Amino acid sequence: MKADKKTEEYLDESKHIGLVQSHTYIHEDPFELENGRLETFSLAYETYGILDEDGSNALLVCHALTGDHHAAGIRKDPKTGDLERKPGWWNDVIGPGKAIDTNKFYVVCSNCLGACQGSTGPASLKPGQEKEWYGMDFPEFTIHDMVHAQKKLLDHLGVRKLFAVVGGSMGGMQTLQWIVDYPSFVERGLVIAATPRHSAQTIAFNEVGRQAIRGDEAWNQGDYGVDKGPFHGLGVARMMAHITYLSDLGMEEKFRQTPDCKQNEDLTKVVNGYLEYQAQKFIDRFDANTYLKLTSALDRFDLFGKHGLDDTLKDVSSKVLVIAFSSDWLYTPSENQWVVESLQRLGKEASYLEMPDTHGHDSFLKGSDDFDRAVRVFFSGMDKKEEEEQNLGRFRQVSSRYEVKKEADFKVIDDWVSSGQRVLDLGCGRGMLLEYLRDSKQVQGLGVDFDRSKAISCIARGVSVYQQDIRHALANLPDDSFDWVIFSRMVEELPEPGAVILEALRVGRRVAVSFVNHAYWRNRLNFLGRGKRVQNEVYPDRWEKSGLRNHFSIEEFEQFCADSQVDGNAFAIGRKVFHQGDWVKHCSFMPNLRAGLAIYELIKD
Amino acid sequence: MKADKKTEEYLDESKHIGLVQSHTYIHEDPFELENGRLETFSLAYETYGILDEDGSNALLVCHALTGDHHAAGIRKDPKTGDLERKPGWWNDVIGPGKAIDTNKFYVVCSNCLGACQGSTGPASLKPGQEKEWYGMDFPEFTIHDMVHAQKKLLDHLGVRKLFAVVGGSMGGMQTLQWIVDYPSFVERGLVIAATPRHSAQTIAFNEVGRQAIRGDEAWNQGDYGVDKGPFHGLGVARMMAHITYLSDLGMEEKFRQTPDCKQNEDLTKVVNGYLEYQAQKFIDRFDANTYLKLTSALDRFDLFGKHGLDDTLKDVSSKVLVIAFSSDWLYTPSENQWVVESLQRLGKEASYLEMPDTHGHDSFLKGSDDFDRAVRVFFSGMDKKEEEEQNLGRFRQVSSRYEVKKEADFKVIDDWVSSGQRVLDLGCGRGMLLEYLRDSKQVQGLGVDFDRSKAISCIARGVSVYQQDIRHALANLPDDSFDWVIFSRMVEELPEPGAVILEALRVGRRVAVSFVNHAYWRNRLNFLGRGKRVQNEVYPDRWEKSGLRNHFSIEEFEQFCADSQVDGNAFAIGRKVFHQGDWVKHCSFMPNLRAGLAIYELIKD
Repeated sequence: MKADKKTEEYLDESKHIGLVQSHTYIHEDPFELENGRLETFSLAYETYGILDEDGSNALLVCHALTGDHHAAGIRKDPKTGDLERKPGWWNDVIGPGKAIDTNKFYVVCSNCLGACQGSTGPASLKPGQEKEWYGMDFPEFTIHDMVHAQKKLLDHLGVRKLFAVVGGSMGGMQTLQWIVDYPSFVERGLVIAATPRHSAQTIAFNEVGRQAIRGDEAWNQGDYGVDKGPFHGLGVARMMAHITYLSDLGMEEKFRQTPDCKQNEDLTKVVNGYLEYQAQKFIDRFDANTYLKLTSALDRFDLFGKHGLDDTLKDVSSKVLVIAFSSDWLYTPSENQWVVESLQRLGKEASYLEMPDTHGHDSFLKGSDDFDRAVRVFFSGMDKKEEEEQNLGRFRQVSSRYEVKKEADFKVIDDWVSSGQRVLDLGCGRGMLLEYLRDSKQVQGLGVDFDRSKAISCIARGVSVYQQDIRHALANLPDDSFDWVIFSRMVEELPEPGAVILEALRVGRRVAVSFVNHAYWRNRLNFLGRGKRVQNEVYPDRWEKSGLRNHFSIEEFEQFCADSQVDGNAFAIGRKVFHQGDWVKHCSFMPNLRAGLAIYELIKD
Repeated sequence: MKADKKTEEYLDESKHIGLVQSHTYIHEDPFELENGRLETFSLAYETYGILDEDGSNALLVCHALTGDHHAAGIRKDPKTGDLERKPGWWNDVIGPGKAIDTNKFYVVCSNCLGACQGSTGPASLKPGQEKEWYGMDFPEFTIHDMVHAQKKLLDHLGVRKLFAVVGGSMGGMQTLQWIVDYPSFVERGLVIAATPRHSAQTIAFNEVGRQAIRGDEAWNQGDYGVDKGPFHGLGVARMMAHITYLSDLGMEEKFRQTPDCKQNEDLTKVVNGYLEYQAQKFIDRFDANTYLKLTSALDRFDLFGKHGLDDTLKDVSSKVLVIAFSSDWLYTPSENQWVVESLQRLGKEASYLEMPDTHGHDSFLKGSDDFDRAVRVFFSGMDKKEEEEQNLGRFRQVSSRYEVKKEADFKVIDDWVSSGQRVLDLGCGRGMLLEYLRDSKQVQGLGVDFDRSKAISCIARGVSVYQQDIRHALANLPDDSFDWVIFSRMVEELPEPGAVILEALRVGRRVAVSFVNHAYWRNRLNFLGRGKRVQNEVYPDRWEKSGLRNHFSIEEFEQFCADSQVDGNAFAIGRKVFHQGDWVKHCSFMPNLRAGLAIYELIKD
């Protein structure tokens, strides 16, 4: 057993999962598929970590189109007994102390049904045959069939409940299918760079790849035997698909900056060499008929179905996080958002994060600090180091004058919200208010914040969050779907905020708006004397370093309320609370002059 | 001669160019190419309109990769004599009264050298041969060779100067090559959806297409004879390339909304049918070797060369407009901007517009109102109807109180700017100030405005404009490249404006900043009394309908100037002019209290 230095590092079990072994599960009984039936099937799989006695710490990892069950660790080559040089495809993410922590979780990954790396698929022999392969006779299997087969494997392994299913790309689509097909079996679903259905563009790329294979004479209607096949067509299909897994910018970074790439003439050679290498590697390990059937299964996948996405997802009970990558143009951020928006419309616990990685669709394989952090906190919550680093404390554990101000309105809003209500917090920051309301009053909260780092902190607190523009997030939500919509000192940051407040009144039964009263007497006197803007601990910046704002006063806010309507109906101001300039002492007399902070309750008639 | 109803419409010469005829120019002498030589060559071409006596109203249209010289009008089928059903590929744009107006211009379009629709290329017979085609023996021609051959045709036609060259995609790259190779011959260049060099991604797609062709056994190293060839490979290459010409959204709109497209299973069939149709149409009309050579010519095109884009473009003297499409992911807006930014760094007249069309790269073939308007005004300026529609008048022809205010600072800036200086106007609007300064003082101006409609109006006024974010545009420009940088009442709209002003002081020798003095006494009294923001004709909106702003006072502005440095050096306030609340009367006493408008000159030490 030889190991080079790099491989030896991977064997260090304090850092990595180390040496692993693949297994095969054989399902001896007939198995019904959506479009056919198999007399028997097998799945290649690996497991890492230890299953709890109650069988509830299992985490299923689903692989992408051409991936396999070897997700982490180092294997021995079955023929030579030598250690393989490369670890599993997600070794960066799965292992002791990693984002998917094998000290906590029993991780299972299987080669999916219909694939060609050890599980039963088009490249497998027909049952009882020694020279007859399924080839194109293999049923037109679906993502549902893959998930159904995985369930059989989990039953066999003694898994009684999945703590989570996770997967990127086709693995993300399997994750979606899991939460649809087995809602009570799956606690959490982490969907990465996936889509509820292929776009016309994606289908078109797949079809060109299939045409390249089927038009290769060596394909021979799928009957090509061992060590033969439409290698040219398969190579073309792979090269093209490979481009869609990367990004424009990522490719420029990868190729343009190689030393010999002075001009496009050189670049052409470098790109060609790379593509041919990718094609050859793929031809060596993959089967053409399997590629045809797998890509068709993906194209056919359609959670919109006949009655729309909300109908398909209506029984989901898993807690869901969807992570998309800005540079992914195969399964775009918008497509990933569809799932989250549907679940949010349905009132489910669903979060969305968008990562800025430049590697395109394949970003999920490469990882990044923010991505790893998001995965880790979704499965394991915030660790102590992270709490300290954030140095933010929790609700009501605040010290500085600034922090007192930051949470001054939380106490009022806390008084107003009743136990078990549904609360939408627009501009939720790190989710402290929603965490507190959940822990103290069983409030079901949803936060919206555009800041990725803050949104990840929400995930760490177990608070559902949509990393999105407030207008976009609001527009998706049904009428009266929340008891409360909260604007905690963020209306000042919105252009044309009136329309947003009215939209919030459509979505919520009540709206709480807290804002800095710009007409506070100190501001007025200050401005009277020298015409300068106020600088204080809430707005510390001089004008030249300041962001854009839209200040207003208590009187102006009330005038807006008096003049406005929601869907033709007026709305009323309910409770209102004013704080003096210290944001602590109450203020009831002449608030437009004396109050520093105002908190309003708006109620639809 | 039969014509169906639609075709008859195209024959109406009051609306369209009508019946046209293709011609062939034969160049009888040897012709040197960058990589070889031709003993003779021919170019198929068409012309529309009439050449002026002085031969100076010619406008050359360059076609895209698989296009041809039949750009407009209706032809007769050479075999049957029947009218063809479809007009030329840019019939919407070229014709009497159209964006490229054949009442004004003598339009020439030729099938490029190396193509296969009538010009000499790989599919042509070798000179003096009856059965021997060039095939892969045809030289590795370049975009430069295409342009050089076109020049021979223009000489032959008696064209002594090109009023303009215009082209989209590969036609845009030819346009770029024209302004590089023949700077004094070309007055204007309109570059549409092009790039100064292919990205790694684009090269990769082309290479996959070429692999598909070369790997098809029927290709036979390029020696396939007439009516045979690597049709399968060519079809795959075309299908893939076709996807890159469309956009994700455009494809969804086109296919998902067909009536039978309820689910992805249906969509797959629709997309397949479309792609196969496109492939077949292409196989019927195009030659595989030509496709290999043409795409290689594109991949090899590289205006960055060995010494960078600025070196390649340093002798350009044509007036350039580049138009990109937001949804174009083949030649992205950024790639289009490279050309404009280089020309602007070099101090040339170059403008950039970005169109929101959703049709991807092919948007330039489809046209749209804004696109047509931009093309028309770049060639013909603003027509009377447009001036009236804009209802904006020209500089100093203003009437309403609001309009007086809008141009109050123009008069001061006009006094400050000297004849022949270079002026950068940030937030230039419709370009009225720069037009006036150009007409009255031969000022060389560049405007920057993010608003597309306003930027098109600049083009109509003959003012160079970069439709872009101010920070982005400023960052591109060299130190001291303008005599003046002007912020006409737009600093208030910028977040963290201090850094932008300092950046302007890097780019300009002097900076003029005009702003509304927020400390004006009326504002103060108004705020003192009721704490309300000012509403007036400059800021008419109530807070709830207002955009975000960043107001400041004369005193605060001067404080910023005193405290700031540019590259470690302080800068000085030069002249300053204050207007009272009416923005007309001057104000010198206590301006921070009494002035409504302030205009500062900032000078680097």
